Amino acid sequence: MASVKRTVFFVSDSTGITVEALGHSLLSQFEGVDFTLVRRPFIDSEEEAREIVAQIDACRKAEGARPIVFTTLVATHLAEIVHLADAFIISYFETFLAPLENELGVQSNHTVGRTHGSTDSSDYKKRIDAINYTLAHDDGVTDRNLTEADIVLIGVSRCGKTPTSLYLAMQFGLKVANYPLIPEDFERGELPGSLRNIRSKLFGLTILPERLTQIRAERRPNSHYANIANCRYEVQAAERMMQREGIHWLDSSRKSIEEIATTVLQALDLRPH
Amino acid sequence: MASVKRTVFFVSDSTGITVEALGHSLLSQFEGVDFTLVRRPFIDSEEEAREIVAQIDACRKAEGARPIVFTTLVATHLAEIVHLADAFIISYFETFLAPLENELGVQSNHTVGRTHGSTDSSDYKKRIDAINYTLAHDDGVTDRNLTEADIVLIGVSRCGKTPTSLYLAMQFGLKVANYPLIPEDFERGELPGSLRNIRSKLFGLTILPERLTQIRAERRPNSHYANIANCRYEVQAAERMMQREGIHWLDSSRKSIEEIATTVLQALDLRPH
Repeated sequence: MASVKRTVFFVSDSTGITVEALGHSLLSQFEGVDFTLVRRPFIDSEEEAREIVAQIDACRKAEGARPIVFTTLVATHLAEIVHLADAFIISYFETFLAPLENELGVQSNHTVGRTHGSTDSSDYKKRIDAINYTLAHDDGVTDRNLTEADIVLIGVSRCGKTPTSLYLAMQFGLKVANYPLIPEDFERGELPGSLRNIRSKLFGLTILPERLTQIRAERRPNSHYANIANCRYEVQAAERMMQREGIHWLDSSRKSIEEIATTVLQALDLRPH
Repeated sequence: MASVKRTVFFVSDSTGITVEALGHSLLSQFEGVDFTLVRRPFIDSEEEAREIVAQIDACRKAEGARPIVFTTLVATHLAEIVHLADAFIISYFETFLAPLENELGVQSNHTVGRTHGSTDSSDYKKRIDAINYTLAHDDGVTDRNLTEADIVLIGVSRCGKTPTSLYLAMQFGLKVANYPLIPEDFERGELPGSLRNIRSKLFGLTILPERLTQIRAERRPNSHYANIANCRYEVQAAERMMQREGIHWLDSSRKSIEEIATTVLQALDLRPH
């Protein structure tokens, strides 16, 4: 079978990040196809829209197949221009906005770029504060203001706490501390003191010892720290402690950052309604 | 006018993060409506799908209006169950997958949860490495391996470099260092030495002095650092330096992290095709 090639345009009046994520989820269903991606964010004038149509049409002529165009242009006059292109167009707003208006019995605003909110909004400040808090509370560096945290992730060193914490802060505006469980905690047989009075905020991550030893060996090859027997001991001791303390946990070994974050939010019931 | 209320379900076989972002971009077009959000990620069995249908139908009875359901269930047999609910259903895959199959002349895989990729993939490792690199190179803490960076953000203290760096690493798997421009640099009248041989990777952020003074005052009230005259001096000196050195820059004052990140990627032409 000849390989199928197609050029894909993401045309947005904002960053295009959402429409691209969505496009990927559709395109990833077509494994045999070789897609070339072209991103055109921040399209907000008729001139730019016409320039894109010319680019799409040139691509169509050069390749002989219609480009795929994902678009989330809210402004009707810009969307209409893009629709003049000789392309297969997946237009999110045009497909769903009118039926939704009809269902709700309310006219939409057709307002551009509201997805990420205003930088003056309290949500935006909350998000920046959350990122700063999370950076300042990475890897147990401080116990200060730990009660301010929305979430405290615990687990052995290098089990995925830091990326998950940062993602939760960045994406959801949550203050996330993370705290390593270390051999001293296991010998003492109890949680670090500063965690005992914030038990409802704790969530544990664990990891397969085989994966942990790989990750640690990249940092410190041939160390006791990375040794498989030591990794087995730490993981088992951490899981036993979390079980005894009634702390929810999950195995991060085969999960993406997004999957871990979503599971944490569900377990702690932390999403706004 | 009576206020319109509606319950919105996000039903996904994966995290639901993408479909929720997309839903928000649609719902934010309806300012007068009071939406209650219910998230149901990781739906992967018929039992769960039927349980959601019961939840949606109960909500419909209680509220008298059909809930709005955004769904990205790839598995046809689960999507079919959810469609039995008495709701207004926006089904991304069902709307676009068949026409896209037709356009490409290729059958889709109907594979679940491919959006975030496998944790075994090289993309995943690249992303984690990028986050670690970015954390290790925040705020000019080290010049080591600076040539490994994909991007080096520069600008005065507290102009938005850190959140932007972390977002670029997290979302796009890029290694991003950030480097503060400080009064000593302005007095010397040239870029810090370690930045001079990586000029093509530099991107500048600037900020309105009035906004900078607010942000700095939260950290150090009544300081020279936060003083408006000093903020004006630093911003002006930084902009002059970037202009003289031919470095692209943008004003972060009214831009979201996503908007800043997208602009940086465009300016440095850093997105994979």
